[in-house]
Parts: sequence; structure tokens; C-alpha cells
Amino acid sequence: MNEFELIQRYFSHIGQSRPDVNVGVGDDAAVCTVPKNQELVVTTDLLVAGIHFPDDTPAHAIGYKALAVNLSDLAAMGAEPAWFTMTLSLPEPNESWLQEFARGLSELAEASGVLLIGGDTTRGALTIGIQACGFVPTGSAILRSGARVGDHIFVTGTLGDATLGLKGETGKLSLSVEAQKYFSQRLRYPTPRTREGLALRGIASAMIDISDGLVADLGHVLESSAVGASIEQGNLPVSDYYKELVDQIGWDTALSGGDDYELCIVVPPDHVASLNKLAAEWDCRITEIGIVDQKSGLRIVDEEGSLIEVAHPGYEHFSEQ
Amino acid sequence: MNEFELIQRYFSHIGQSRPDVNVGVGDDAAVCTVPKNQELVVTTDLLVAGIHFPDDTPAHAIGYKALAVNLSDLAAMGAEPAWFTMTLSLPEPNESWLQEFARGLSELAEASGVLLIGGDTTRGALTIGIQACGFVPTGSAILRSGARVGDHIFVTGTLGDATLGLKGETGKLSLSVEAQKYFSQRLRYPTPRTREGLALRGIASAMIDISDGLVADLGHVLESSAVGASIEQGNLPVSDYYKELVDQIGWDTALSGGDDYELCIVVPPDHVASLNKLAAEWDCRITEIGIVDQKSGLRIVDEEGSLIEVAHPGYEHFSEQ
Repeated sequence: MNEFELIQRYFSHIGQSRPDVNVGVGDDAAVCTVPKNQELVVTTDLLVAGIHFPDDTPAHAIGYKALAVNLSDLAAMGAEPAWFTMTLSLPEPNESWLQEFARGLSELAEASGVLLIGGDTTRGALTIGIQACGFVPTGSAILRSGARVGDHIFVTGTLGDATLGLKGETGKLSLSVEAQKYFSQRLRYPTPRTREGLALRGIASAMIDISDGLVADLGHVLESSAVGASIEQGNLPVSDYYKELVDQIGWDTALSGGDDYELCIVVPPDHVASLNKLAAEWDCRITEIGIVDQKSGLRIVDEEGSLIEVAHPGYEHFSEQ
Repeated sequence: MNEFELIQRYFSHIGQSRPDVNVGVGDDAAVCTVPKNQELVVTTDLLVAGIHFPDDTPAHAIGYKALAVNLSDLAAMGAEPAWFTMTLSLPEPNESWLQEFARGLSELAEASGVLLIGGDTTRGALTIGIQACGFVPTGSAILRSGARVGDHIFVTGTLGDATLGLKGETGKLSLSVEAQKYFSQRLRYPTPRTREGLALRGIASAMIDISDGLVADLGHVLESSAVGASIEQGNLPVSDYYKELVDQIGWDTALSGGDDYELCIVVPPDHVASLNKLAAEWDCRITEIGIVDQKSGLRIVDEEGSLIEVAHPGYEHFSEQ
């Protein structure tokens, strides 16, 4: 099978056909239309085997997750996802692997209404780069820089699950079969909060998706906005399976574990009621975890109000240097 | 140096500032504006060390070429380049390497008026993915599928130089110092034919950039357009250094050598005069090499009119399978 046959067989149609894609896969480039009065939102994320997922992760999950993490970035801007391109290097064109990878990618693409419009494949270490495009009405993207003193801080879903899944899979934590199943599902199939992100236009003052851990990602918002914040450890939303482990592992994983792809949402006081009304209809819960204040930096306090040191503030590549 | 410092230091500003980029590097995603009555043209290409360039290629050339090959795809659509994103995996954050890589990337970005709007970096085998966006007036993209019987086929520049550069660098061909210098320059610093591509809107019926070799790439045009073509080997434009070698190496490299990033342009008979008029002002020459006909496939004829077999019709990854 040569490169062209490979692309043709597995990637010539991934996702939902869209009237705004005039030329898709198969020319030198794709040709698309951005709707009137909308801005284009563009993001890119790279997944490398052995770094972003364990080598034995099922191909279906890798295909799903490579797209999910990009849709999560669009969600964090309040953008409606539209198209994506993909670069794929893989050691050899193993057909059953490709079929499963394409199936995972395809399922999320179709569910999200996005279309693969181009790509490039090559031989190499397993690496998936996806670049996703979406739309926001002009001027309504939700940036990291909009947080103001007095704003309330929320997160969607639960924190730390993906990291516990990884620790279980790599033998660093002993988990029950049920707990491992739950955490692995969260690690392998993060849910991009697309619907929630879209609904937060005009409500959130700032937003980010939690890919590197709450402390690191909320830290980016605070730095961009030139503010500080206090969050209460006891308010951090964790799953029931995490709760069962909390005496053993503490709160650090909820504070600094990456890969959950939940949204961290900052909301002005006069929009909190609107947020709560919206969230009543969502599939995921939201939890208020803290407040934006003037003092630079992020302070985490325990139930007695004492400041907590976070051991590992977030995942960074090259951080060993 | 951690990932954020790395991005900040080398990639926070690459290219020319643009009023249509409302949010660039540094948020979850970039936010950009596509001009009214223009379509967005999107392409992506991946370069892997040891596959797309020799491991000892200077970092400056790698940075330049990673962008150049994407701008070449935009040129082949008749698109005006605007923005790009980049995914970069590298074994370690070697600062002098990064500095040179960023300098090569930056030089071409500035010369082309494009801006880096986002990216992702990770540790891994040296791999550069770039995804570039440009504009065309609605409906005026030049596709592969527009070639019609009787159209004339042209190419820009000269063919085969990059492949000869690679053969010399890898010891497969013995070259004079001057010839190696010329061919290596063509291999490492291909010129995206941006200005030429833009000018061909409304003139060319079909176009492609020659990345996999003339035979393979013109073959894509013919297949997309459901036509055939004949080209004359004796008309193929080659450099003076190639001419000196032609008795030794023949014409195969001009026919099937990849990586030149010249344009293969298909032009209806009544637009040939306009093309020649335009081309008189270009830096690169253009050469008519053949004609589109009805009979499926590509025929290459020598000076006596005899059909020629091409030994290696084009470069394909995975083609060993």
C-alpha cells in the first residue's frame, strides 16, 4: 500500500460533510468559507506515543483523543468547531491499527460535526498533529486575559481522573478493576466541552481548558489577566473513585494532574446566576472553586484557611532541563 | 528551560505582524479575520529528520524549508499566504539549534508577510509540522481538476536539482564543489512560487507544485481532470549543472526527482499569450513541456518521438511495502 492509497483508504472522508468546505482532501490545499461576521479560531496540538499516551493505548482511543484535545482548545475560546487537518507519522502502515485509529477519529468528528480537510502522512515515530479551526462571532472569543478582581472561578466535571488513570495503567498506583476502568476511560476519551464553551460567550470573562493541570492552567489565566486568585482545596470537584483514594493520595492530583480537558471558567459576579441557569441543563456538573483577587499568584487554602504548597504545579515537556 | 519559556523565547513572534490576527500565539487558540469575499485556503506538510531531510541539514535550512513547502502548496492554489501554525518535536531543547531554526523560519515568514499564530512543542524525534492558511477571492482557487484537452503544460524554474543535491550530500553521486553548492542550495532553500501562483488566477486551468516529482505530480492533475498528456523529454528545463551531468545520469531525475517545489501549470490555448507576458517579469523562467490530450495517462517522448519508460515515477513514503 503506498502513501496515496493509504490516505485514500482511511482518510479521504473523516467527519461530517459541510457546505462551507468547497475543496477538501485531495488537492494541494483545502478551500473553505468562513461565515460572515465570524472570526476564524485556529489551534494545534501534538500527541506523541510514549509522551502523551502510553505506547499500548488502543488505536481507537488515540484517534479519538488527538481530535478531542484540539476541540477542547476551541471550546475554551467559545468557538464552534468546523474543520481540521492532520499530520500523522507512524512506524508502518499497519492496516488494523489504521482502521481503528480512523474509526476513533471519525466517531468524534461526526459527533462534533467537523470535517477532515487535509493532511500529510509519513513514516516515523508515532506522532499525531491536529490543527482545528472553528468560528466565533466577531469580538466574542473568550480569552485568557479577561479575568477581573472579584470574578468567580468555576470548573466543569471532575479533576485528576486522567492522571490517576495513567498512574494505574503504568503501575504507579494500585486500583480496583472498576476504578481503573473509570479512570482509563477519562484518560483515553476526554470529553471536549464544546457545547458548554459555546454557551459561555457573553457570560465568561476568561476561560482555559485544563490540559496541564488546574494550577498551571489557571496560572496562565491569572498571568494573562494580571490578577491573582484564591481557591479552596475542599471545593475541588473530584469523582467518587477519587474520593475513595483521597486519604491515600491527597489533593495534589486534582490540583496539578493534567489531561482532564475540563474547562476552567471565570465569571463576573453579575453573570453567576446566568451560568448556574445554563449549567442546570448540561451533562457535566460545574463547581465554584474560588475567587479572583488583586494579589498576584494563585493561593490554595485548606478547610482551615491555611495556605497549601503544591508539589508539582503542572505538566511541562522539557521541564527536566 | 521549560516548554513555556522555550516557546516564549523563540516562537512568540515569528513573521510579520498582521492586522487580521486579533489573537496570536499565547491563548488556547488564535483568532483571525478572513477578508470579505475571500475563501480560506488551508494546507499542511510534515518534515521528518532522516526522511525529508538528511540528519545533518543545518537548522536554519530546516526552519526555512518547513515553511517553504507549505507556502508552495498555497502558491499552487493561487492563494495569498497569511498565517501558519507549527508543531515541533525535538529530542532536546538545544538553544543554538533552536535559534538557527527560528532564524530560518523567521526569514521566510517575514519575506512572505506571514505570521506564526500558534503551535505546540514536545520532546520526540525531530519532526516539524506546519499548517498554513491563505486567501483566494471566492471561486478563484486553481485546482488540480481543471485541465482540459488541448491545454498547454508549463513548469517554472528547473527540475531535478533538489534530488541531485540530496544524492551528492548522501554520497550517491560525485559532484564538483560548485555543483554541490548549487544543488544543495536548491534542496535546502526551495523558493515557493508565491508571486507566480497569485498571478496565475484566471489564467491557469489547473496547477500543482512539484514535490514528489513531475511525473507523479502531473499524474495527479491528469487523474483529477480525467485527461492524459504527452510531454517531450527534450523540453524539460534543467540547470546548467544538470546539463553537465546529463550524459552520465540521463533525464530520469528531471522527470521524477522530488523536492524542487516548482509549479506545474496547465493553461488553455487562449491564455498562453497572457502567461508569456506575465512570465517576462518573473525571476524564474517558465518552459512549455507538453500538451493535455484525451488518452488517459502520461506519455513521455524523446526527441525521435519514441515513448520513454520512467524508472521511478515519484517519491512515496511507505512505497517499500
